[in-house]
Amino acid sequence: MKETLKKFREIVKNKKKIESTLALIQWDMETTVPKGGQSLIAEIIGDLSLKSYEISTSKELIELLDVLNENKNSLTELERIEVECLREENEKLKKIPAEEYREFSELTVKAQGIWVEAREKNDFNIFKGTLEKIFEYSKKFAKYRNVNEKPYNVFLDDYEKGMTIEKLDNFFLNLKSEIVPLLQKIKEKKVNFIPKNKVSIENQKKLSKYIAEYIGFDFERGVISESAHPFTLTVSPDDVRLTSRYFEDMPFSSVFSAIHEGGHGIYEQGIGSELKETVLAEGTSTSIHESQSRFYENMIGRSKEFWFGICPVANKYYEFIKKENLDELYKEINIVTPSLIRVEADELTYSLHIMVRYEIEKGLFNGEYTVENLPKIWNEKMKEYLGVEPVNDSEGVLQDVHWSCGLIGYFPSYALGNAYSAQIYMAMRKDLDIEQLLLNGKISKITEWLHNKIHKYGKSKTPQELIKQISGEDLNSKYYIDYLKEKYSKIYEL
Amino acid sequence: MKETLKKFREIVKNKKKIESTLALIQWDMETTVPKGGQSLIAEIIGDLSLKSYEISTSKELIELLDVLNENKNSLTELERIEVECLREENEKLKKIPAEEYREFSELTVKAQGIWVEAREKNDFNIFKGTLEKIFEYSKKFAKYRNVNEKPYNVFLDDYEKGMTIEKLDNFFLNLKSEIVPLLQKIKEKKVNFIPKNKVSIENQKKLSKYIAEYIGFDFERGVISESAHPFTLTVSPDDVRLTSRYFEDMPFSSVFSAIHEGGHGIYEQGIGSELKETVLAEGTSTSIHESQSRFYENMIGRSKEFWFGICPVANKYYEFIKKENLDELYKEINIVTPSLIRVEADELTYSLHIMVRYEIEKGLFNGEYTVENLPKIWNEKMKEYLGVEPVNDSEGVLQDVHWSCGLIGYFPSYALGNAYSAQIYMAMRKDLDIEQLLLNGKISKITEWLHNKIHKYGKSKTPQELIKQISGEDLNSKYYIDYLKEKYSKIYEL
Repeated sequence: MKETLKKFREIVKNKKKIESTLALIQWDMETTVPKGGQSLIAEIIGDLSLKSYEISTSKELIELLDVLNENKNSLTELERIEVECLREENEKLKKIPAEEYREFSELTVKAQGIWVEAREKNDFNIFKGTLEKIFEYSKKFAKYRNVNEKPYNVFLDDYEKGMTIEKLDNFFLNLKSEIVPLLQKIKEKKVNFIPKNKVSIENQKKLSKYIAEYIGFDFERGVISESAHPFTLTVSPDDVRLTSRYFEDMPFSSVFSAIHEGGHGIYEQGIGSELKETVLAEGTSTSIHESQSRFYENMIGRSKEFWFGICPVANKYYEFIKKENLDELYKEINIVTPSLIRVEADELTYSLHIMVRYEIEKGLFNGEYTVENLPKIWNEKMKEYLGVEPVNDSEGVLQDVHWSCGLIGYFPSYALGNAYSAQIYMAMRKDLDIEQLLLNGKISKITEWLHNKIHKYGKSKTPQELIKQISGEDLNSKYYIDYLKEKYSKIYEL
Repeated sequence: MKETLKKFREIVKNKKKIESTLALIQWDMETTVPKGGQSLIAEIIGDLSLKSYEISTSKELIELLDVLNENKNSLTELERIEVECLREENEKLKKIPAEEYREFSELTVKAQGIWVEAREKNDFNIFKGTLEKIFEYSKKFAKYRNVNEKPYNVFLDDYEKGMTIEKLDNFFLNLKSEIVPLLQKIKEKKVNFIPKNKVSIENQKKLSKYIAEYIGFDFERGVISESAHPFTLTVSPDDVRLTSRYFEDMPFSSVFSAIHEGGHGIYEQGIGSELKETVLAEGTSTSIHESQSRFYENMIGRSKEFWFGICPVANKYYEFIKKENLDELYKEINIVTPSLIRVEADELTYSLHIMVRYEIEKGLFNGEYTVENLPKIWNEKMKEYLGVEPVNDSEGVLQDVHWSCGLIGYFPSYALGNAYSAQIYMAMRKDLDIEQLLLNGKISKITEWLHNKIHKYGKSKTPQELIKQISGEDLNSKYYIDYLKEKYSKIYEL
């Protein structure tokens, strides 16, 4: 057994190193590579993906996993979970032929370049054929993996174990039936707001960095950089990378990106050191990940108390932020304006953007929609749920990078993450006086709570286990809906 | 034969891809990685170096090379050169045991972190033990490779084929005997100059980018980024990366970095496309590389005509640059001030900095010096040749990254590059009216000349072949000495 475990650890180490290399190359692709280098980097990513696939499906690993599984009783609990986790991954991957896996990896890397071009030229037709291929591969892979399951369910389950179309239909129906009327009432109030403050990019960078550090992001084990779309990428828990973007006339866009990505980053950096050498050293699901980023962004970052706590520093870089103006600031950063771009959406309408994407993915899988018609379908849904309609594809169907990366079934995580964040927030309130801590600048107590209840476990507990342990019940969208209704009724005096 | 060539091309492709991956990771290490990620990235670089070593010394490749070598006559000229080049590399590498090769790769990556710390803390003792190890490995490797040769010659030959201690002693003696007295005369003139112009970093970035593009750097196939020390790194000729650094009160530091690194970059981007899939798609030697960067930096960038040609644009970003001030500007950018830091050295004293390093490397190999005593030796030599003495190790022996990277025997390339650049400049003058082209903003004719005489050949011609073809003779330091004497006698009215 000792020898088996030793061999197992070696393979895992190798696998993790390939994945870290892949992460480093992906980081370069997102932040640096010039146009001329794109095709080579695509090939390198293809090679590394294949390599990682080969390790995960190698006969050697499978045999080791079988032996370890048969001798479960002599394993520690963490080892058991790790073995189970790898067995599952293996089950998923081995059904996809290696060559097709590689083709798909390369396709999605190239697709990102094509998507960028389509968006720049504002022409869905440039991207259409590629997107069709991505969905074709996805359908094929879903069939390989589970011929008896609805293809879309196969992918939903990847991101959130046990998630199904049925559950999500129900989830979004609840949200829709509450948020759409609430939004209607807010619109009737006809509150208009035109942001007027400009802040130099240098000062925005300083405040963003300060806030990331303040909420607990460790710059000895992480960096913040720039990219067209903010994201977080983990090379290892000791090397976590955030990006943001800066516009002089939108001084809060960068700050909220820093808080949001900082939330992701703190999660990754907070993974327990006992997991470091295992495959469990990552976030447990995209939804829980999103719950952390959105918790910091919305529950913390969009509260008056947070800004009160950091007011002296914020004022150094954003002169207009003053203690006597915080009521006004609070309204500004919580303004509800149905808009076209998801990443700039306010907290209330955000989930409606996700619903549009969810329904489209579902429709593409069940044959109701075709890629060809997506721009039209997109625009219709935006009009129906949000009351706004894109005038071109860049601010419509072409706005998100996800599909070009082959991330199908990922979008619902954002909405589920919102729901998780509210449920976690309500549970935290029972233990901590959040408002008082923020007023006193003691945010570290909040991060510590999350660390002990979520971060440190990495992937060793499922989302279901975590939320049950934290709140005593399963994920329940009621908390999120109540939170939104209470907050926005107050702000808009409904 | 067709089958052999096909297999050969596959291995070369694979080897090049590993090297590009390594370049991407090295770029990350130099520009991005946080402290926490350093040890993992060091391990990844170690793995990839080993992998590249394994390919280069693989039985499969050696056998193919033997077959190709035996059938030379059915190869094209380029194929013959490529085979020869790989056979030589193979000869060098195979004598070093794989495990030691890997150890040395990892050592040098870690050494860079240690060197950074030593420099920050201004304490040579932190770095001493590591540097000793690096020189020990180097001595051992030299013995493995050629037990009958002086160890330092083995490394000199790596960077410039045929280079020896004897030749370099002679080369530096010539330089020293001319430059030191010239410098003495200039010092006696007691011209003092305190730069007074500040330029915002944003504007410095704009002018740097403009100039890089103006001299011919293609931003579709390259990027410019920031790092503590400017450098150029090639992922492929279609992905060439420069860095620079910016200080508000030293507005020319960034610009000359951009021109210098731009010169390296243009060389790499200009390599003929017929070489793209071969191992010949890189600069032929570090000296020729340095000749290109220093040609642009000194012969072009420090000329009055260059600034006249770009004056309208330069004035947009650097307001004080005006046609009526160019005489003054010319003096400012050609001021001679013996100083402590090589990368900030003026054109005249630069080679003296190199001489210090050359003599130290030579002395470490022949047993005259020990690592222990380096700070003292360094300071003495600086005083003797330049008349200035460091007060701490950071501005003395700890200033350069090279030794920590294991680059032993590299420094002389800088001085040889200077000599090449002057010889090339003199040859170019026979074909082109350089001053007139610069006055008219037609620098592209100059870059085209270099492209056709040097860049396009990549590694398919040796430095010796190139300089002979260009100037009709071997490298001759006379051109460089004449150039310096003429230029500085005029500026300082000697």
